[in-house]
Amino acid sequence: MKLTILGCYAATPRTITNPTSQVLEMNGHMFLIDAGEGTQVQLRKKKLKFQRINHIFISHLHGDHFYGLIGLISTFMLLNRKADLHVYGPKGIKEVILLQLRLSNSFTGYNLYFHEQTSKESKVIFQDDKVIVRTIPLDHRVYTNGYLFESVPGERKLRIGAIEDLGIDRCYYQKIKNGGDITLDSGEVIKNKDISYDPDPTESYAFCSDTKYSEAVVPIIKNVKVLYHESTFLDSEEHYTERTKHCTAKEAGRIATLANAGTLVMGHYSTRYNDIKLFKKEAETVYSGQILLADDGKEFDL
Amino acid sequence: MKLTILGCYAATPRTITNPTSQVLEMNGHMFLIDAGEGTQVQLRKKKLKFQRINHIFISHLHGDHFYGLIGLISTFMLLNRKADLHVYGPKGIKEVILLQLRLSNSFTGYNLYFHEQTSKESKVIFQDDKVIVRTIPLDHRVYTNGYLFESVPGERKLRIGAIEDLGIDRCYYQKIKNGGDITLDSGEVIKNKDISYDPDPTESYAFCSDTKYSEAVVPIIKNVKVLYHESTFLDSEEHYTERTKHCTAKEAGRIATLANAGTLVMGHYSTRYNDIKLFKKEAETVYSGQILLADDGKEFDL
Repeated sequence: MKLTILGCYAATPRTITNPTSQVLEMNGHMFLIDAGEGTQVQLRKKKLKFQRINHIFISHLHGDHFYGLIGLISTFMLLNRKADLHVYGPKGIKEVILLQLRLSNSFTGYNLYFHEQTSKESKVIFQDDKVIVRTIPLDHRVYTNGYLFESVPGERKLRIGAIEDLGIDRCYYQKIKNGGDITLDSGEVIKNKDISYDPDPTESYAFCSDTKYSEAVVPIIKNVKVLYHESTFLDSEEHYTERTKHCTAKEAGRIATLANAGTLVMGHYSTRYNDIKLFKKEAETVYSGQILLADDGKEFDL
Repeated sequence: MKLTILGCYAATPRTITNPTSQVLEMNGHMFLIDAGEGTQVQLRKKKLKFQRINHIFISHLHGDHFYGLIGLISTFMLLNRKADLHVYGPKGIKEVILLQLRLSNSFTGYNLYFHEQTSKESKVIFQDDKVIVRTIPLDHRVYTNGYLFESVPGERKLRIGAIEDLGIDRCYYQKIKNGGDITLDSGEVIKNKDISYDPDPTESYAFCSDTKYSEAVVPIIKNVKVLYHESTFLDSEEHYTERTKHCTAKEAGRIATLANAGTLVMGHYSTRYNDIKLFKKEAETVYSGQILLADDGKEFDL
């Protein structure tokens, strides 16, 4: 699982920082999460093979999270993309993208599917044999979802040595991979755990931005391996959280603790702060797991 | 008159080049012409006081000319702008901007006026005591206008020495500035040209992008001081001009010659070329005036 931060600052893009966008690589997939203005240039800067992106997840329709989407869709068109592209986001996203394509008299040569969300409950919105993606309803000034990405557990792995010693025929291998026990010709039953190893551990990543402090997300993301949680403010600006519906660093840490997250990635910093290390310092007071500070261009192997 | 090129390359933004946007400073005004994705960051890079922009002119609704507009409008909002903002562009621009503001539940604290164009004739669309702006109908794949900016001639300037020698009273000064002759007490008529100088020469700038080769623009921009004309292709790609409705460097030069333009600024280069100096070389074969090559970040004092 690899996370590349294209941008992780709140509000307006600046010469030195970019609004929210990130790429999550999980189990062979390359997912784009949010797409602030400049996303396509950030993708190029990171030399990512961005034609591999087939699924784009937009949290909400504030500009710093989606103004770069139409540019990326247009660029895919100019690059003669053929593969289907799926866009997940709040209701309205289809209208605004199609209107812009229509006004420019442009039509994508690839199939563009919109999966518009309106539910206030967590829902599975994507699933294949590699990854499951669920919404995480958030509490922000407009309808907003975070996203939980979980790799699908693979098959069990064969203990080839033990299997050959027991003389088990190849035709039973798939049964063993599926977790089944084997009865030998002698009548002896061999327990699956004695002839197989556990599959690779599943990976999980929760993206929670933008949101006010809300413990309602905890049951959805419980025991997540990596939690990206917005932390727009430091404690000194805590009084802004109610009106803006954003979080402090400490509140992000509190959610990480309640969810028993293995790692907390912090981001969506207000551009008023010059030293993002302070976010880690404040979150550390309430969360004892690993804390990583997102920053534009950073890559995390998780 | 000063021209700052924020971006002058065709199609998709890249790490090293930006789509079309430029700032024209004329007679106290700061006009923004086109706004491809990344315009607000380019404005910041150039350290331009972009809150001074009150009039934005969009040529057409292809993404590389206007996807950065919504971001700039939103940023003005976040910066608590109060001054009116006027946006000139093709019909449809109002719908797409307002839809995006509505979806993000945002409302500008300043007055945002749209002046949507549909006419295929050249029209005056802005006029004050400093500058007149006219549309230049262009021939592209979608409805497109270039823009002609002309400074308004100022008042004539007093020849103070001559005026004092003749004993003309101050109360006649405004009449002289307005071009009037003066009758002395003796009955002698003093011609205006003997007691005043011509006003500063007017400035003029024509922006023509995107368009196929069209001599229809020539009467509108005749004798323009500075002509920015798109030159997407070199001669070797001339066969693309018909389908894409763009120009070659030589065609841009031909229009500059026919219009008797004082200076030709070339731009809107296809990103397939590595050496933009070739554009100048080809245009020089058909235009003998000054040729300037636009490039991102360049400033021209004209």
